[in-house]
Amino acid sequence: MGLLSEGLTQVVIPLAAVVGLGFALLQWFLVSRVKVSGGHGERNGYKDKLIGDEEEGVNSLDVTIKCAEIQHAISIGATSFLFTQYKYLSIFVGVFSAIIFLFLGSVKGFSTKSEPCTYNTGNMCKPALANAFFSTVAFLLGAFTSVLSGFLGMKIATYANARTTLEARRGVGKAFITAFRSGAVMGFLLSANGLLVLYASINLFKLYYGDDWEGLYESITGYGLGGSSMALFGRVGGGIYTKAADVGADLVGKVERNIPEDDPRNPAVIADNVGDNVGDIAGMGSDLFGSYAESSCAALFVASISSFGIGHDYTAMSYPLIISSMGIVVCLITTLFATDLFEIKKVSEIEPSLKRQLVISTVLMTAGIAVVTFVALPSEFTLFSFGTNKTVKNWYLFFCVAIGLWAGLVIGYTTEYYTSNAYSPVQDVADSCRTGAATNVIFGLALGYKSVIIPVFAIAFAIYVSFSLAAMYGIAVAALGMLSTISTGLAIDAYGPISDNAGGIAEMAGMSHEIRERTDALDAAGNTTAAIGKGFAIGSAALVSLALFGAYVSRAGIETVDVLTPKVFIGLLVGAMLPYWFSAMTMKSVGSAALKMVEEVRRQFNTIPGLMEGTAKPDYATCVKISTDASLKEMIPPGALVMLTPLIAGTFFGVETLAGILAGSLVSGVQIAISASNTGGAWDNAKKYIEAGASEHAKSLGPKGSEPHKAAVIGDTIGDPLKDTSGPSLNILIKLMAVESLVFAPFFAAHGGLLFKWL
Amino acid sequence: MGLLSEGLTQVVIPLAAVVGLGFALLQWFLVSRVKVSGGHGERNGYKDKLIGDEEEGVNSLDVTIKCAEIQHAISIGATSFLFTQYKYLSIFVGVFSAIIFLFLGSVKGFSTKSEPCTYNTGNMCKPALANAFFSTVAFLLGAFTSVLSGFLGMKIATYANARTTLEARRGVGKAFITAFRSGAVMGFLLSANGLLVLYASINLFKLYYGDDWEGLYESITGYGLGGSSMALFGRVGGGIYTKAADVGADLVGKVERNIPEDDPRNPAVIADNVGDNVGDIAGMGSDLFGSYAESSCAALFVASISSFGIGHDYTAMSYPLIISSMGIVVCLITTLFATDLFEIKKVSEIEPSLKRQLVISTVLMTAGIAVVTFVALPSEFTLFSFGTNKTVKNWYLFFCVAIGLWAGLVIGYTTEYYTSNAYSPVQDVADSCRTGAATNVIFGLALGYKSVIIPVFAIAFAIYVSFSLAAMYGIAVAALGMLSTISTGLAIDAYGPISDNAGGIAEMAGMSHEIRERTDALDAAGNTTAAIGKGFAIGSAALVSLALFGAYVSRAGIETVDVLTPKVFIGLLVGAMLPYWFSAMTMKSVGSAALKMVEEVRRQFNTIPGLMEGTAKPDYATCVKISTDASLKEMIPPGALVMLTPLIAGTFFGVETLAGILAGSLVSGVQIAISASNTGGAWDNAKKYIEAGASEHAKSLGPKGSEPHKAAVIGDTIGDPLKDTSGPSLNILIKLMAVESLVFAPFFAAHGGLLFKWL
Repeated sequence: MGLLSEGLTQVVIPLAAVVGLGFALLQWFLVSRVKVSGGHGERNGYKDKLIGDEEEGVNSLDVTIKCAEIQHAISIGATSFLFTQYKYLSIFVGVFSAIIFLFLGSVKGFSTKSEPCTYNTGNMCKPALANAFFSTVAFLLGAFTSVLSGFLGMKIATYANARTTLEARRGVGKAFITAFRSGAVMGFLLSANGLLVLYASINLFKLYYGDDWEGLYESITGYGLGGSSMALFGRVGGGIYTKAADVGADLVGKVERNIPEDDPRNPAVIADNVGDNVGDIAGMGSDLFGSYAESSCAALFVASISSFGIGHDYTAMSYPLIISSMGIVVCLITTLFATDLFEIKKVSEIEPSLKRQLVISTVLMTAGIAVVTFVALPSEFTLFSFGTNKTVKNWYLFFCVAIGLWAGLVIGYTTEYYTSNAYSPVQDVADSCRTGAATNVIFGLALGYKSVIIPVFAIAFAIYVSFSLAAMYGIAVAALGMLSTISTGLAIDAYGPISDNAGGIAEMAGMSHEIRERTDALDAAGNTTAAIGKGFAIGSAALVSLALFGAYVSRAGIETVDVLTPKVFIGLLVGAMLPYWFSAMTMKSVGSAALKMVEEVRRQFNTIPGLMEGTAKPDYATCVKISTDASLKEMIPPGALVMLTPLIAGTFFGVETLAGILAGSLVSGVQIAISASNTGGAWDNAKKYIEAGASEHAKSLGPKGSEPHKAAVIGDTIGDPLKDTSGPSLNILIKLMAVESLVFAPFFAAHGGLLFKWL
Repeated sequence: MGLLSEGLTQVVIPLAAVVGLGFALLQWFLVSRVKVSGGHGERNGYKDKLIGDEEEGVNSLDVTIKCAEIQHAISIGATSFLFTQYKYLSIFVGVFSAIIFLFLGSVKGFSTKSEPCTYNTGNMCKPALANAFFSTVAFLLGAFTSVLSGFLGMKIATYANARTTLEARRGVGKAFITAFRSGAVMGFLLSANGLLVLYASINLFKLYYGDDWEGLYESITGYGLGGSSMALFGRVGGGIYTKAADVGADLVGKVERNIPEDDPRNPAVIADNVGDNVGDIAGMGSDLFGSYAESSCAALFVASISSFGIGHDYTAMSYPLIISSMGIVVCLITTLFATDLFEIKKVSEIEPSLKRQLVISTVLMTAGIAVVTFVALPSEFTLFSFGTNKTVKNWYLFFCVAIGLWAGLVIGYTTEYYTSNAYSPVQDVADSCRTGAATNVIFGLALGYKSVIIPVFAIAFAIYVSFSLAAMYGIAVAALGMLSTISTGLAIDAYGPISDNAGGIAEMAGMSHEIRERTDALDAAGNTTAAIGKGFAIGSAALVSLALFGAYVSRAGIETVDVLTPKVFIGLLVGAMLPYWFSAMTMKSVGSAALKMVEEVRRQFNTIPGLMEGTAKPDYATCVKISTDASLKEMIPPGALVMLTPLIAGTFFGVETLAGILAGSLVSGVQIAISASNTGGAWDNAKKYIEAGASEHAKSLGPKGSEPHKAAVIGDTIGDPLKDTSGPSLNILIKLMAVESLVFAPFFAAHGGLLFKWL
């Protein structure tokens, strides 16, 4: 037994979650002190009063009112899109809940009799029907929490965007703090929420399951499935929404009409800003919540069949949850460094400050992991590893979690190197714009491919070490380690789109060039942090998927997944193809939706008199509708591909082929996801590099409107769907197929492989 | 025993090879009847006399002399590049021969004593040192034959290009026949040569090995390694050469100076045309020769440890060679359909005629396989399958070979669908050019990703069926089946670059617009056939690599390649990354070389007075030198990556990790290779679709110089390195790593995995 008693564990976990929630609310309160209001004071839902502090040299009332109006429009657009999306999702959730219940219930023919346990031999476990029921409940809880995470993130982001703009008048440091605090609200809400719901579910399920921990933690895996399936639609739908609007707005506005980005005359500009909130904020929030839920579920499931599961050591079983609790505390301290201990005085301090967050949280968390490991785990215990038992010491687990954490930092720094315009890779891409868009694209693609190398080695190293030390449990906790600083990661990540929106609002409200420059500087750092966030999401997805894959294999009763058997090999080959199929769908969707948007924007410019002169208002609503309709329609085929593949493969081709598919999509998907995200990020920052003209080299390529700049804009536009739609959705593809296979494993093992049985 | 006696087998194989060689010479003779000559009559090496037939409405002498001059320049350029490249390669071959000999010799400590056989238990086999020696000899023979194949292909192509141009004056049908016959020369020379050298080597080696067939066929695998390693440098070096010139010429000529493609005023135009011959012809020839050699070696190696290897059934052992012999005969008949039985009268008949070649050869070959299978194989025999024995009937093998053959046809037709501008995918890409280059690129990438789906399912199906029927031997002969019609495949493939060159010569010789239109029509069909050829190359590479992988696993003594072991999984993950690393290198190389070319071409336009007006001649030689230097320098890093990875992985991480790497790079590389080739082909044909303006839709996008056309040119330029450098080189990456692992397997099994041993 570890040092921490069961009673204390029952206090520590919810306490950490409550502290996290409280901290999030505190940050929200601090952000809310920036007052935004206008004619819609009552109607924008926040009941803010007119104007706050004295500001330097701004005719404040007018601008504040404009900002409030724009914020209101964005908030309304985002909320209404999400509610429409949730309507569709509720149908999906209903149908899929029925599938889960029926498939899992049928494993033992809907019998209500207790069964002998699989691992805890000699004891009786609850009937398969109960597992089916509780898996369905866990699925619903996961889906709900995921949606809530995305929704709350969107709310705070649309609450913070105009506030960041207004603060930018008082200096870049003030604006930074506002954007960053808002990101922190999202980060802490999400992690604390996820932990709390999971903790509560386990304790509630235990009322029924009692000593049957096998069944209990099997059912809990439904939580991961629920979280991840919502994340899929959130990422894909939101990604299509935001990029259709962004690409459409840029193609007509910047390229054809030669008006600036976010110009209020552009009819797609509101849709573009709404898109940032539903795609980059809500989608990403759901995604990372999904990763967190899945890695916790994978670790819990593997632990439940280890010696502490069989021996009912509650504290040791809760190790994954205690790690996450410690993560909340560590991130809380880390956040104070950015918001209170250091102050941003210059633009050049923004990116280092964000990077410092990563380092501080990683260093502190390493100590935190050590503490948790030594108090929560017995000094030695036994893990189940594909038919054999493995004896493990508690300090092995420290290394497993820590290596995941540090691998995340390596991935983050590599991503930064390849996507920040402070280093040569992006500068080379910018330089290649001299000879036009074609060389820009060739260099950008090459950069993305190259950026895969180090992250893959880091992941491979983490896998090798953590597996060698503690088998699949080691990998599951390594994934958890990478995600343990999720609150900070999300704060950094959400900061980007908030700054992007803030810039848009500044432009639309007609604020001075200086304000726009400040928000642009925030946004450029945000591009890099967004890429870093994606790097984390992909790295953790790789580890999580592998852990889920291991759990699936255990649960499906497979002893080896041998590449030399044709069933597995064809799975591997087809699995490696799936990310391409999926990307083809999502990219084509963005392309088609963008074409529609372009036609509408052109139509408005051609038919609304006075639009170009700024005397008439564009029809923003039609553009919002185009993005909404396209994203809702187009998210279905890729969603179906991901959700149906495991079901079809497992049912018709059996558990081995499905294992091959999971492994294939994992090893192939990681590469495309990283390269797509980094290529897109690099193109975006290459463009910003030319626009900012901060060095002699950059000046020689600029200014805005020069031939190299035009080439850079083309690259940026191509990168949009790569970095914000197909790339980040691929994480979810690999995780979701794995967790779905895990949940349905008993069914596939009992009734699957029909096709090979018939032949 | 089968019906065919050993004596007859010894006659049939060399006879087929000689027939193939004779047919190739006959075609060459027929092509040579088109006379090309000029002032250089004696110096261009073919001693042609001035002028031949009467031609319609052309002031023939002047044009013929110009064509001869241009042909001469291209031929000189290509020959001198290849000889320079061979100088470098000879150093590589020397060093690598020493490595092979030393590594394999060290397996049993350079002992000269005979060893007990591994599979043919109870008997004595030749010492490992002898295997090391003969493997090295086989490597040298393979390297030599590969280089010879590429060189002869280049010779006939540079011999035929001007002849095709001149024949185009007499009609599109005549030009087609000339180009196609020349392609056939290459196809038959290569397949007959490959077969003959392999046959002779086996019989010569047998003089030493006698009854030790294990050692004999182990050593023969060096032939595949030699062939493939030359192919790697040929493809990569040639690919960089041709695309640096092509991209550089287009960026300045077409985009900046607005002069037509292949305009003689463009200083890079000769380098561009030389590039087609060294990249698309010589590189591709080496590549397909490598595939052919490897699939034969894989099949022979697996057969040598089956019951007919142990039982010394020479005819059954030679089954792979007899299949290839039959292939030569079938392709010979097929060729007659194109050259003698049907005549091309209209442009629209070109593509169907080429497609018909594929169908005819496939149907005839299916019958041929049946015949060979029933006369060469005993009705039942035993195959060795990873530690177990499998009893197989001869008609199983018929299905294995046939399924490979037909899977090739499916891949070919799918490729055609996605890259020909007669169908909607390419037309959609062309349509997306309306909104600029960005949407063109997004749609093109999506098309490439999507085009992977059907080929992967076809390959997976072929693998499943052939493995289920006859284990790894089934997969090896399926690969051979896909390659059995290689003569026809190559003829179709080589036809493309020859037509491309013919068009270039027509432009440079100042021939009429009508001639150029005819060669353009030939070339458009050539783009599609080139994509089909790449599809075959990739599909066969996937099967070949898997067969080699199986042979490697057998030879290294691995029982299972279990994804659930961390050694294998990290191999899988890193292996899946290698194609990205490799593509990053090759694409960046093309990009950098193209930038240099652009600067040189710009310099010439700016500093040579009268160049734009056509009164002064450009300095072609400097551009040729830039391409040459870049390709020779830049082919080294990617070459080193491919050649060193198996050595490093096997030596330090051991046979299991290497197995993972091979499987990972195979399943990941196939996808990128197919998508890159098809994306590039689609962009090229989307551009041609707009230029040709053959439909109302196409006309609405054109004409040349319109905004959509400019966007299409950018896509085409991006596609160049994808389809002609990185995409096709990836086949070689996956094959070469597999065959290298196979050759070095005894060394890795004896001394490998140092790092894990130390830990």
